[in-house]
Amino acid sequence: MAEFDELPAAGNGLLDRRFFLRAGVASGAALMTASASSLERQEWMKGPGAGMSEAGAPSSHESHVVRASIGSLTGTTGTGASRTPLQLLDGIITPSRLHFERHHSGIPDIDPDQHRLVLHGLVERPLSFSLDALARYPMVSRIQFLECSGNSGASMAPEPAQGTCAALHGLVSASEWGGVPLSVLLEEAGVKPAGKWLIAEGADSAMMSRSVPMDKIMDDAIVALYQNGERLRPSNGYPMRLFLPGWEGNMCVKWLRTIKVVDQPSMTKDETSKYSDLQSDGVSTLFTFPMGVKSLITSPSPGLSMGAPGLYQISGIAWSGAGKIKRVEVSADGGKSWADAALDAHVMPKCLTRFRSAWRWEGSPAVILSRATDESGSIQPTRETVLKGRSTAAFYHYNGIQAWHVAENGEVTNVYV
Amino acid sequence: MAEFDELPAAGNGLLDRRFFLRAGVASGAALMTASASSLERQEWMKGPGAGMSEAGAPSSHESHVVRASIGSLTGTTGTGASRTPLQLLDGIITPSRLHFERHHSGIPDIDPDQHRLVLHGLVERPLSFSLDALARYPMVSRIQFLECSGNSGASMAPEPAQGTCAALHGLVSASEWGGVPLSVLLEEAGVKPAGKWLIAEGADSAMMSRSVPMDKIMDDAIVALYQNGERLRPSNGYPMRLFLPGWEGNMCVKWLRTIKVVDQPSMTKDETSKYSDLQSDGVSTLFTFPMGVKSLITSPSPGLSMGAPGLYQISGIAWSGAGKIKRVEVSADGGKSWADAALDAHVMPKCLTRFRSAWRWEGSPAVILSRATDESGSIQPTRETVLKGRSTAAFYHYNGIQAWHVAENGEVTNVYV
Repeated sequence: MAEFDELPAAGNGLLDRRFFLRAGVASGAALMTASASSLERQEWMKGPGAGMSEAGAPSSHESHVVRASIGSLTGTTGTGASRTPLQLLDGIITPSRLHFERHHSGIPDIDPDQHRLVLHGLVERPLSFSLDALARYPMVSRIQFLECSGNSGASMAPEPAQGTCAALHGLVSASEWGGVPLSVLLEEAGVKPAGKWLIAEGADSAMMSRSVPMDKIMDDAIVALYQNGERLRPSNGYPMRLFLPGWEGNMCVKWLRTIKVVDQPSMTKDETSKYSDLQSDGVSTLFTFPMGVKSLITSPSPGLSMGAPGLYQISGIAWSGAGKIKRVEVSADGGKSWADAALDAHVMPKCLTRFRSAWRWEGSPAVILSRATDESGSIQPTRETVLKGRSTAAFYHYNGIQAWHVAENGEVTNVYV
Repeated sequence: MAEFDELPAAGNGLLDRRFFLRAGVASGAALMTASASSLERQEWMKGPGAGMSEAGAPSSHESHVVRASIGSLTGTTGTGASRTPLQLLDGIITPSRLHFERHHSGIPDIDPDQHRLVLHGLVERPLSFSLDALARYPMVSRIQFLECSGNSGASMAPEPAQGTCAALHGLVSASEWGGVPLSVLLEEAGVKPAGKWLIAEGADSAMMSRSVPMDKIMDDAIVALYQNGERLRPSNGYPMRLFLPGWEGNMCVKWLRTIKVVDQPSMTKDETSKYSDLQSDGVSTLFTFPMGVKSLITSPSPGLSMGAPGLYQISGIAWSGAGKIKRVEVSADGGKSWADAALDAHVMPKCLTRFRSAWRWEGSPAVILSRATDESGSIQPTRETVLKGRSTAAFYHYNGIQAWHVAENGEVTNVYV
């Protein structure tokens, strides 16, 4: 395997990304020579298969690819979360059936014909929009991530929690979100000069509500009606939700029912009891809106056991609430040396970006990490940096570097470095 | 409604795309003033909703959003097609459950652990790849369209067929396709100098097969393993298919089983009995690989009745096998005058591109059309141009301009102009 030695990029077998452009890369133990018997027909070729249908479904062999770590929290029925199985996915789109959920009182069963979006408060003309009314307005659609600010909160614990990518970091997903810019609707209503914030409230029985500054609304907020081409799924706000690209998921109020224009943030229960970051000096930084630059190796990762030593693809996702991902570096020696990963074709603002590196694993224990940089120049911090100054009771907005330990037997576990 | 008169773009109420950047656009009849009763709580807010689940599903109110015009063709069980309900979707991603199907002998129920991809023929080392072996190779993922070359074939009939966008044009969809570049696997096997083509064959009982020139394979062909982030759906080739960006769907062989490197096209049954274009002089143009530049207004369209006169959004999709869409023009006066439509943020090569125009419909009969131009400079042809020189028995590769007639009562029908 002399080819490997020609393109080293960093320590412990990490190969230069130009390696992807080379042909003739023996993948080692997994490769089989074909023989005449390789062309024998399998049983499923011997008769006609299933016919067409109104809606396709995954293969029965993929029944393990479901949302994971479904957990109920204190509260009413349906209060809790389910997580995207990031370690079983590739690319950047999250299938809608696997988009993470976080509900504060379950999923309301909304009749779209009866649902209305009401704009009121500091406006010239309070307005009520049916779905038919919204359909007449210009729409936009964009592929962007959504992340719960509680994602990765387990990484603040003193000892590394053991679990899959889903369990540890599965409160992030990406979809094509389509809808009407909220700025258009607000200017239809006529925002009064004193209107500098708004309160968005959902039609769930928790009446989840958040305050949002007007600047963000006028920048890129939409009333989302479509997710990955079809109407929003109920667990993601059917028939409409607020979508604030790059900002914490909780603010993207689902089942959006009212927008009240106000002159200052309203300190609703949902933005004071949760989603604020307690510091070690006892002061809380109340509002942390954009999600920080972050990345995660999804393969290899816990639960995906490595096979025989040889060539592997390290693959993962990176994202930032500040814009596009500019660079992702990968280390296979615990952070002593780093190499640039290759980014897939689509690098879009406030979206997941898929990165890949080639790694020759020699079968020895190793620690692999990834580190993202966004177009604003922000670099994903270490765990130590994220925790600095925070109270041990803090939980939200964790974006530290994730390290995975690969054991000699191929098992992958969560470690702090 | 003086605003409308300020930004005319073309005849019969078509408004300039800058209209989208304006605020305060009264949408007319559909708009309602909010009152105190607008804030009353609906029934679904009065108790907790449904809890979290392993996999989400669409709302029960969206049960009409399914694949349509499911048709069986002469042949074995499972020979036929189902179509994407384009008129009910927005954005560019097609949800995998709604991706069109075209099978030649149904969907085989493949065990991924037993399935192999065999490379043989004019190669130095015939190879057999399991899914585990493929997982070690570098992958790429890209959002691209897939179109059956029989799509829109009904438009070659002497009289305009009546049906929805699904029925008439629903054999096109777009997904994020992820997989291993076939060039990497072929160079691993070592292509002999005489190897200029390959035959790709599927593991369905029809053993669907097509010849593909080596240049295309080395350019951007992949062995696709992922569709919209998860493993391919069975109806789209699980566990692997050939994907040739921009080329006719039939060549993107599903359930990919063997790749045989050969020195010339093999004239398989599937590329001679079908997918070739008979000309009026009796000669057939056998191979038409890339799909031509094309567009389609999906809203308004047949089956979506218009309401009261006033402002409407004209929305549709455009695509080209040659690369990116550069421009889409829309006409509301039967093609007498045209105006540029706004393109959504993501304009990607060999992908659907969503376009939108603002239209003030005055309630009179109108004919609306769209016309796409791609980055190679190709302009979508008229129906007359597409048909010129073709036999009346020709059926494939129709990319002519589609015209919709809007009647006074809001009904939309298919017309030839």
